[in-house]
Amino acid sequence: AQTTRIAVTPGDGIGPEVVAEAVRCLETLRSRHSLPLEWTRFPWPSHAWHEEHGESWPTDALEQLKAYDAILLGALGDPGPMHDPERYLLPDSISLAPLLDMRKGFDQWVCERPARLLPGARQYLKDDRAKDIDMLVIRENSEGEYVSQGGRLRPGSPDEVATQMEVFTRRATERIIRYGFEQARKRAGERIQQGRTRSFRTLDGKTCESQVCLITKRNALRYWGDMYTEVFEEISREFPDVATHHELVDAACMKFVSSPWAFDVVVASNLQGDILTDLAAVISGGMGVAPSCNLNPTDPDMPSMFEPTHGSAPDIAGQGIADPTAMLFTTARMLDWLGRKDPLLAQAGQELFDAVAADLAEKGSEQRSTREIGDAICKRLGA
Amino acid sequence: AQTTRIAVTPGDGIGPEVVAEAVRCLETLRSRHSLPLEWTRFPWPSHAWHEEHGESWPTDALEQLKAYDAILLGALGDPGPMHDPERYLLPDSISLAPLLDMRKGFDQWVCERPARLLPGARQYLKDDRAKDIDMLVIRENSEGEYVSQGGRLRPGSPDEVATQMEVFTRRATERIIRYGFEQARKRAGERIQQGRTRSFRTLDGKTCESQVCLITKRNALRYWGDMYTEVFEEISREFPDVATHHELVDAACMKFVSSPWAFDVVVASNLQGDILTDLAAVISGGMGVAPSCNLNPTDPDMPSMFEPTHGSAPDIAGQGIADPTAMLFTTARMLDWLGRKDPLLAQAGQELFDAVAADLAEKGSEQRSTREIGDAICKRLGA
Ligand SMILES: CC(C)[C@H](C(=O)O)[C@@H](O)C(=O)O
Ligand SMILES: CC(C)[C@H](C(=O)O)[C@@H](O)C(=O)O
Repeated sequence: AQTTRIAVTPGDGIGPEVVAEAVRCLETLRSRHSLPLEWTRFPWPSHAWHEEHGESWPTDALEQLKAYDAILLGALGDPGPMHDPERYLLPDSISLAPLLDMRKGFDQWVCERPARLLPGARQYLKDDRAKDIDMLVIRENSEGEYVSQGGRLRPGSPDEVATQMEVFTRRATERIIRYGFEQARKRAGERIQQGRTRSFRTLDGKTCESQVCLITKRNALRYWGDMYTEVFEEISREFPDVATHHELVDAACMKFVSSPWAFDVVVASNLQGDILTDLAAVISGGMGVAPSCNLNPTDPDMPSMFEPTHGSAPDIAGQGIADPTAMLFTTARMLDWLGRKDPLLAQAGQELFDAVAADLAEKGSEQRSTREIGDAICKRLGA
Repeated sequence: AQTTRIAVTPGDGIGPEVVAEAVRCLETLRSRHSLPLEWTRFPWPSHAWHEEHGESWPTDALEQLKAYDAILLGALGDPGPMHDPERYLLPDSISLAPLLDMRKGFDQWVCERPARLLPGARQYLKDDRAKDIDMLVIRENSEGEYVSQGGRLRPGSPDEVATQMEVFTRRATERIIRYGFEQARKRAGERIQQGRTRSFRTLDGKTCESQVCLITKRNALRYWGDMYTEVFEEISREFPDVATHHELVDAACMKFVSSPWAFDVVVASNLQGDILTDLAAVISGGMGVAPSCNLNPTDPDMPSMFEPTHGSAPDIAGQGIADPTAMLFTTARMLDWLGRKDPLLAQAGQELFDAVAADLAEKGSEQRSTREIGDAICKRLGA
């Protein structure tokens, strides 16, 4: 098989510490299964690189990264010492820009965050049905509220007007909604294989194995809300086996807290998805466990990018106490994704997922160092 | 004292049922304290009116309402029978438009939702510190994402582009942020009077009695994010006694679940505030208890509007089982607001709040009819 190549970008803060454990797990898996896998470490994008070069990464960064099959990112952002008000007010957009540039440059039009409350993970919701949370939040990752169009008229004056344009295309809407339905069908298939079933009612009273819930704010943001609704309705006809549902984003946020176990696949716009994926993360164990996958499912020449949902946590960086669990789940997700071409990698991804989940189930949030957790998981992998 | 006049608009679904209990409480309070208070019922805005007249309310509706000191709204919206897919897909914007028209027409530029988890209210979060939740979410209610500018180019075609413009002015930004700081200061004063204290650290290490947390998504929506940040920084200098904090909206949503007791006053844009107020509602007891206040604090000629956060719940309408608690808390808030001109009304508002809170503490979510709950509370008010 062809060698799969990964660009490892540890980033800022705790990024390098948790990435180190990911790399150790990859090494263990590679040597045990002779995986055709190699990786290269990049010192950028990062705050350090920015300090030295006046920019977060080299001008040909995207070109360099394009040669890889996937990008494994630690964490970006360094807001500076919190006691320094000047730094605090600096837009952290400086150090985070590469994240958005990668998504755009590689047309990673899907951002996907699975949410399951695994045994051992922290449970924030009181209702024990939280243990049944099993959803996949799919965020449109290429346009919408994030097109960066707009500006400031008369900045600083009392008459200032700031604008921000949201731009949604039918093409991007169709592909993300269709992707949502495909995932719902796939999840239903996997569940049936595992002997687990769920049931969702359609509007006309049928019962389905899976559901897609579309999120909009169409009662206030009508234009794209209506387009999303129409496209959803159209594409749902191609998937008569999948139930449909529609929630307004504010109601959806409430239901993520009051009854998240009722959701299956959720499709949302870029900003609303950003919010809902973070919420989905916290109700399924929090930042300590949540992976985030930025995918280009259509163009095999474009690398997808994998990062934990958590930030760079500068307050605990350098102390060796950051929990690498989210980073390792992220790495498992990446292997699973790469496994679309090479089943060996998918298997390794499953093995890594199982090891991290087993460690979590056994140890919960017991206080351990970054290294200790990495050690325990490598050992489970047979190191 | 001059008579205070209230426009009562019961609306749709369970609206009329819960409003009936609010009116009974108002009657009880009026007769016991000879309150200079009167009210008029309007059959609009409502779905029924819309069905009959082809519009949600008369063309001079805003003019008629302007003669009142406040508007007490039940609930709006009727999505139609859930089993009818055609109706389901109708934009509910039709029946909800009057809500946005009132906010705009009366320049109700503040939307305010206090969040405290009262004894007896449903607790969704596991951590018992949820009992310490005591925040006020203040939403910019006049512009931003809700300006309704945009459109659909080539609607229905594969090349369709839908746009939605966000427009933020410095004036509206300043007034909402200043309002936030004023409320923080006021809350600190009230707490000190009640012998309760809280402490928030500023960036330079001072300790304050209160805090304002500004919400933006400035790392992705830069233009107004930067303007908000600058205005926040400027106005904070007028309030050296109030600590400041800044959260990105996605992180804020997570923290509303993981550590909501750490917030005091939160100021957010129209859409982000819409989301955060709903989240604040659910973590402090849910839809059953949450009031929503649409205020014009600057123009005494403009009525403010008060509504429960919950919707019209068409699925349980007409059965006499809707919980009027949120509506009654909303009515208490309205009296408190009207009490700015007439202390008697503020006192009545406090009395109503205490009665509803006492009922909630005693009965919790025990199954009772709308009428039974109203009876119990009227009795506490001395009926
Ligand atoms: C860092 C920020 C620009 C980013 C986003 O908003 O997309 C982050 O919140 C995320 O979810 O990956
Ligand atoms: C009904 C809808 C337009 C409204 C809003 O988005 O403002 C509602 O969600 C609210 O919070 O009052």
